[in-house]
Amino acid sequence: MSDEINVEPTAAAVIGLGQMGTRLAQAFLAGGYSTTVWNRSPAKAEALAAQGATRAANAGEAVAASSLVVVSLPDYATVRTVLDPVAGQLRGRTLVNLTSGTPHDATAAAAWAAGHGAAYVDGAAMSGTRLVGRPEALFVLSGSRGAFERHRTVLRSLGNSTYLGADPALASVYDTALFGLAWGALAGFYHSLALVRSAGVDPAEFGAVATAHMPFVTSLMTDHARQADEGVFPDDDGTVDVHLAAIEHLSDTSDTQGIGTQVPALFRSLLRQTAAEGHGASGIASVIGAIAKGGRDA
Amino acid sequence: MSDEINVEPTAAAVIGLGQMGTRLAQAFLAGGYSTTVWNRSPAKAEALAAQGATRAANAGEAVAASSLVVVSLPDYATVRTVLDPVAGQLRGRTLVNLTSGTPHDATAAAAWAAGHGAAYVDGAAMSGTRLVGRPEALFVLSGSRGAFERHRTVLRSLGNSTYLGADPALASVYDTALFGLAWGALAGFYHSLALVRSAGVDPAEFGAVATAHMPFVTSLMTDHARQADEGVFPDDDGTVDVHLAAIEHLSDTSDTQGIGTQVPALFRSLLRQTAAEGHGASGIASVIGAIAKGGRDA
Ligand SMILES: NC(=O)c1ccc[n+]([C@@H]2O[C@H](COP(=O)([O-])OP(=O)(O)OC[C@H]3O[C@@H](n4cnc5c(N)ncnc54)[C@H](OP(=O)(O)O)[C@@H]3O)[C@@H](O)[C@H]2O)c1
Ligand SMILES: NC(=O)c1ccc[n+]([C@@H]2O[C@H](COP(=O)([O-])OP(=O)(O)OC[C@H]3O[C@@H](n4cnc5c(N)ncnc54)[C@H](OP(=O)(O)O)[C@@H]3O)[C@@H](O)[C@H]2O)c1
Repeated sequence: MSDEINVEPTAAAVIGLGQMGTRLAQAFLAGGYSTTVWNRSPAKAEALAAQGATRAANAGEAVAASSLVVVSLPDYATVRTVLDPVAGQLRGRTLVNLTSGTPHDATAAAAWAAGHGAAYVDGAAMSGTRLVGRPEALFVLSGSRGAFERHRTVLRSLGNSTYLGADPALASVYDTALFGLAWGALAGFYHSLALVRSAGVDPAEFGAVATAHMPFVTSLMTDHARQADEGVFPDDDGTVDVHLAAIEHLSDTSDTQGIGTQVPALFRSLLRQTAAEGHGASGIASVIGAIAKGGRDA
Repeated sequence: MSDEINVEPTAAAVIGLGQMGTRLAQAFLAGGYSTTVWNRSPAKAEALAAQGATRAANAGEAVAASSLVVVSLPDYATVRTVLDPVAGQLRGRTLVNLTSGTPHDATAAAAWAAGHGAAYVDGAAMSGTRLVGRPEALFVLSGSRGAFERHRTVLRSLGNSTYLGADPALASVYDTALFGLAWGALAGFYHSLALVRSAGVDPAEFGAVATAHMPFVTSLMTDHARQADEGVFPDDDGTVDVHLAAIEHLSDTSDTQGIGTQVPALFRSLLRQTAAEGHGASGIASVIGAIAKGGRDA
């Protein structure tokens, strides 16, 4: 790495001070970085000024204040609305865009930034607003590696800021995929909570045991990702046939208890399809094949 | 607690030395407990004898050897096949049955044990065999509280042995529910893995980021369990409408990438039903209502 890359800025600018932008600015302040803020309506910037931030009179002033410009707005159209008038001032700066959008949005924004001489990093906040500033708050980032390296320490004050690669669309791909992962866990949890409640179990007690169980479930993911990569599915965590029998039991029990069976019906369908394709004796991660090949039947 | 309850046995007997029973016996040995083992076919008991266990010549000898008798067999019918002939020797002992079964199986086994003067604890191993003996291996147990207390320290050598309550059926209820929870997380993971692979992402890299994301997802469960209990669903983690829009995006992206949409279709269906019932502006945990009320449509 050149010396240039190792020069760490001591300042950050935040444009867009909604629920997320406010937490971003607070995390930079807590990290000891001089932080300039701008928001369309002034009240939110005033609140942050009271916490030590510098208020910019307009977006251009915010861009001028720092080599690291972090943007958090509702969508990419709004990003363009706000930045187009001040694009001339972006040259030589790094734009970190934490606005949610599609891979296509990110690719287009990267091209736009390049056209104005700015380094571009796209990103997504994965852990809501509450954890921002704590090491467990996951931010996925992709785009200019040099810009990420240059601002790595500042960005670390937001949380676990993870660089994924040079393609600016990657962060959005991960954002969407991790959102689906979260919904899988939540749908499973909501179903299991409905099930135990129908049996008179206290939700808080079940929540505590479920929480204790999740590190084990999570530990399977690394293994199963490797199995998918290698296309070899050992049965250490049980076979498709054995899990299918247990899912039938889950579905029957849910039905008997009078709760919905939508959630186990999905698992059963995935397992049945996998078994029907001749993988009944394979490990459960072979179910990935039933998803990867497409087809919309649940 | 009386002194009697605090008397800890220093021995355990394990009946059934399959994949699970062998690991149970090894964990007791590793915990420093004198361990007696029996298995129908002798080779597995011989292997454990080489590791320090005492081989019982038959099931009755195993029961006679210890006040704590742990059973791990394929099903409850097999438990009866093995224990019926030696039931007379169970009086005053504790039977911990870690065989997988239904709540009904557990209730019937508890009545059978009571009829023979034995204390009964039903249980389920939640973390496969590989972790057995480590603190993160979750075992859920229910039934006689006194028996659990008496053997708490020995049982702790198996892992995180969690007592759920006096109803022997509880462990089976939790077993089924936690299995569904795990499948939710895995189905979400398999879908997200298929999605990122279709975009050229390395599975191992995604697996690492997904693993880093799971503690956040898990942290929502405690909150959402409490919300379900109180019937109040604040929108701190996003509203049903906002999540529905993001799930539509997940589904569209999956379709564009040519992978299956079965998994997001379930989430969309749950969110749509919840929104249609007037909860679009509620927090996402209100989806539990769409499951709890029953109905089999996905
Ligand atoms: N909140 C979360 O938990 C969360 C989690 C992950 C990702 N995100 C993402 O973070 C981004 C920001 O979300 P948020 O929750 O902070 O949103 P928010 O609370 O609704 O705030 C929106 C911000 O955008 C500004 N804005 C809206 N339209 C504008 C316009 N035409 N010109 C200038 N400014 C405009 C608003 O300014 P005014 O104050 O003047 O209205 C406000 O500061 C979104 O892309 C969101 O998907 C949020
Ligand atoms: N393996 C896991 O990852 C796992 C995880 C959670 C729960 N469990 C539960 O643990 C229990 C045991 O599973 P496992 O995986 O250890 O099974 P396994 O490896 O198939 O072993 C089955 C054991 O049962 C014995 N057995 C079978 N039929 C018998 C009979 N009629 N009389 C006497 N003994 C008989 C077998 O003896 P032989 O050696 O003579 O055949 C063997 O020791 C099951 O309820 C399972 O659901 C297992």
